[in-house]
Amino acid sequence: MTTTTVPMLDTYPRTINLDRAKLAATIDALIACAEACTACADACLSEDGVAELTTCIRTNLDCADVCGATARVLSRHTGYDANITRDLLEACVTVCRACGDECGSHAGMHEHCRICADACRACELACRDLLTTLN
Amino acid sequence: MTTTTVPMLDTYPRTINLDRAKLAATIDALIACAEACTACADACLSEDGVAELTTCIRTNLDCADVCGATARVLSRHTGYDANITRDLLEACVTVCRACGDECGSHAGMHEHCRICADACRACELACRDLLTTLN
Amino acid sequence: MTTTTVPMLDTYPRTINLDRAKLAATIDALIACAEACTACADACLSEDGVAELTTCIRTNLDCADVCGATARVLSRHTGYDANITRDLLEACVTVCRACGDECGSHAGMHEHCRICADACRACELACRDLLTTLN
Amino acid sequence: MTTTTVPMLDTYPRTINLDRAKLAATIDALIACAEACTACADACLSEDGVAELTTCIRTNLDCADVCGATARVLSRHTGYDANITRDLLEACVTVCRACGDECGSHAGMHEHCRICADACRACELACRDLLTTLN
Repeated sequence: MTTTTVPMLDTYPRTINLDRAKLAATIDALIACAEACTACADACLSEDGVAELTTCIRTNLDCADVCGATARVLSRHTGYDANITRDLLEACVTVCRACGDECGSHAGMHEHCRICADACRACELACRDLLTTLN
Repeated sequence: MTTTTVPMLDTYPRTINLDRAKLAATIDALIACAEACTACADACLSEDGVAELTTCIRTNLDCADVCGATARVLSRHTGYDANITRDLLEACVTVCRACGDECGSHAGMHEHCRICADACRACELACRDLLTTLN
Repeated sequence: MTTTTVPMLDTYPRTINLDRAKLAATIDALIACAEACTACADACLSEDGVAELTTCIRTNLDCADVCGATARVLSRHTGYDANITRDLLEACVTVCRACGDECGSHAGMHEHCRICADACRACELACRDLLTTLN
Repeated sequence: MTTTTVPMLDTYPRTINLDRAKLAATIDALIACAEACTACADACLSEDGVAELTTCIRTNLDCADVCGATARVLSRHTGYDANITRDLLEACVTVCRACGDECGSHAGMHEHCRICADACRACELACRDLLTTLN
């Protein structure tokens, strides 16, 4: 898929107090992570061993909610209060690490968990990278 | 409106590592705040002086996204990692304070901003109250 | 919980091409249904017999997504195209009926499913009632 | 950005009653459209002529909500009731056409509206294409 995140940022009519390339990379990583988590939760629900995957499903749903909301907030280039951006990126780091670890522990059994763990780790890294530019 | 937050918590089949009354109060405050912010953003868009309300609209949309996602995560009684709950509650406190202040500054002009500022402040207090039980 | 849906509608600065009392009742029913479905999905994940509840969890998650999005769209009093309102209300009727039936079939075993089925049916009725005023 | 929509579908442990390539294309188009609409609403809020763009902002927000919810529901491969999929795809067609038309009418003035109109039209086409396989 090609999102329009980069061209949309390029056409933004005002200044953005963030590195535009890192901002775009983070938004796209958040969107991809949210989608992977939503799909992984459903794939887990379809496994015979679903009873062993309930923590994974829950973390997937939490991670999808937090990353989805953060992608929308970051897409608003909220210059009015940098603390909101920082708090949300920190919440994403926490939930992406939890979900990456949980999915990673099932990666040998379930390919969807391996793919989702990779998406969570990539998203955690992107959020950490953007956080360093805020401090 | 009557939500089913309290009876749903009462029927939860496992233990919850949080004060159930405070958890229910916080979930309901988050839901009410998200709805007030969504409606206030739209009411602001309908005002003749919309050009003076763009920060208010943006904060409303951010607050609605963060509070909505947090309500869903808290409704999952995520015992697996208390850091996620804490990070999200802190993000809610930050965005509810920003939105309460911004809406509060228009409360004399616009009744919808006054109602929304009250919802944001009630939500901020509920989140702070639940946070004290986590630390 | 008390939402601010009614007072927010009362302060709306323009005309709304819908019965305000029915609109407010529908928005509140949608919000309550979305919350009940999110909590019911998590309660189902906590049951020993989770393997028998996977369709219920999926329908809960779908119903929560559709009702949550529709509550936000209705809160925008979207006069520009009544077809959007109609299509979304019809989607809500379909998913609330599916979720009410599915949760209803577990209501004897699980009290959270009984409460959620009631929320889905109340929401279906509210959406049907608002739909009749559109046609 | 590269989403994991296709590999996640490839690892799904059960049958899916939909053309997998068209399903993946639709999910990715919905995600890209939701993101474009969220960013376009914020860019419109930053324009000097925001008072002329309020319908555009509203349609953007509605389109983002409906497409985002539909992407999540489709990612659950909801075989239990094809009517839900159909109703939601029809709602997406309606809102994407409304938003594509509205953004398209500002495309000569605002490049972000031109990009967003293209994303809406691509999403409308993908939804129509998937709908034909359901009937």
